[in-house]
Amino acid sequence: MSRISYVNGSYVDNKEAKVNIEDRGYQFADGVYEVFAVIKKKIVDYDGHLNRLYSSLKEISLDSPIIKEAYIFHIRNLIRKNNIKDGLIYLQISRGVAQRDFKFPRDTKPSIVITAKSMSMEDYYLKFDKGIKVKTTNDLRWKRVDIKTLNLLPPVLAKQEAVENGYDEAWLVDSEGYITEGSSSNAWILIKDSLITTPATTAILKGITRTSLIKALEKRKIKLVEKRFNKKDIKLANEAFITSATQFVMPVVKVDSIKIGNGKVGKYANIFKDAYMEAVQLK
Amino acid sequence: MSRISYVNGSYVDNKEAKVNIEDRGYQFADGVYEVFAVIKKKIVDYDGHLNRLYSSLKEISLDSPIIKEAYIFHIRNLIRKNNIKDGLIYLQISRGVAQRDFKFPRDTKPSIVITAKSMSMEDYYLKFDKGIKVKTTNDLRWKRVDIKTLNLLPPVLAKQEAVENGYDEAWLVDSEGYITEGSSSNAWILIKDSLITTPATTAILKGITRTSLIKALEKRKIKLVEKRFNKKDIKLANEAFITSATQFVMPVVKVDSIKIGNGKVGKYANIFKDAYMEAVQLK
Repeated sequence: MSRISYVNGSYVDNKEAKVNIEDRGYQFADGVYEVFAVIKKKIVDYDGHLNRLYSSLKEISLDSPIIKEAYIFHIRNLIRKNNIKDGLIYLQISRGVAQRDFKFPRDTKPSIVITAKSMSMEDYYLKFDKGIKVKTTNDLRWKRVDIKTLNLLPPVLAKQEAVENGYDEAWLVDSEGYITEGSSSNAWILIKDSLITTPATTAILKGITRTSLIKALEKRKIKLVEKRFNKKDIKLANEAFITSATQFVMPVVKVDSIKIGNGKVGKYANIFKDAYMEAVQLK
Repeated sequence: MSRISYVNGSYVDNKEAKVNIEDRGYQFADGVYEVFAVIKKKIVDYDGHLNRLYSSLKEISLDSPIIKEAYIFHIRNLIRKNNIKDGLIYLQISRGVAQRDFKFPRDTKPSIVITAKSMSMEDYYLKFDKGIKVKTTNDLRWKRVDIKTLNLLPPVLAKQEAVENGYDEAWLVDSEGYITEGSSSNAWILIKDSLITTPATTAILKGITRTSLIKALEKRKIKLVEKRFNKKDIKLANEAFITSATQFVMPVVKVDSIKIGNGKVGKYANIFKDAYMEAVQLK
């Protein structure tokens, strides 16, 4: 079945959905994006993602090309037109089309693109039950990864390196040996009963799923420690996880050659996943 | 007059020149580029730029979508079709169109886009005679800026900051206080009779114009020192310059509030510009 996307005011067949070659998203990665999960036709953490979109836009001095209320309208239309039960919405805004020049163009209208695709929750649960393997690699990204921009080649290369070596995700290691986060996820380890994740500085993207999980765990009185961790800490971990908008809570059973716990999905993985699903009212 | 561009095998009116919204250049900045100057209908430093294009492609594990000999054919066609005497050619290659996923897609053909535009050499000489003003700002870019990729939002923001403050270019300052390079140019200062420029490590893009100028100066027995320099050094400089494919050699007369020399274009600026123009056989 062909997919329908939203591009600068029109709903179009994905194959025919195009932007000009001088769109600054294409030539300069001059834009920002968000990914929303859809479960049972409902948008997960909608406010969190939309607020972060507006923060990202502000950080790069870009105005939204549509009014705030229009986002949910178009996203719901795409869920309906693409007949999505479970899936994801990808939304990007770039500085628009202008003759190539590093400085911002004047009076250019930003471009907006929204796509939708189905995902299987069954696949998610199957993957969850197995857990994933993570490879560490150097974090080569720029110094403002707290802004969700289109400058994604560094994490793309990290992810590819992991996949080519038989792993599912990359964990990025800063110049001091600390894990910042995954290529497209936040990173967590559990040592005894303390859950540890990297603090939300400019060195990580403050995940919406991360924030929702933290809130959910407050209610359950899980001891959360926001601090940096390195490979020595990982060796002490009894469980490990990633979180992201589309992977929710996903257990990590191996980091490089380090087996986490007994190498199988631990009990906290289920507790955290359930807590998250409950918090976003998906349970 | 409308411009003609080359997009994935076709020559098209620039306004109609489009790529799919799921081109990885648009969603991930997953691609590389080159800019070639054209003077008197001749392509400047063609071999240097084409060789670097192939190096960049290799660094991100991307194959050229066309044979090596086809590049000059398409570039020459665009020079002719757009009736360019003096101008520039912009060429980008991305990993092509695939459903969004951080890891590389299988069997996807890379996308290639080439655009052309006219520039005025008179404007260049007028700008040269005045010199440019440079603002320093933090270098926030990723750790492999030696690869000429589309991940250009960091230098875009640096350039914009410079322009908004009344400057013409930004010089990027690393965490130790050293100038790495400009937002889209290499940086040089002259202290007494020593010409100083940042060494070509992974912290700068090794400019083709930079390399050609170095070769040209060898013949003229100018003392070149490839070493890092900071603002203290800039205060001691009697002249300063940037080099780039489209600005050739351009004198810098001010850096932040520091007047360079007497604040006017110095004698070495002309020597270097002439040496470069001669080296690329444009004189």
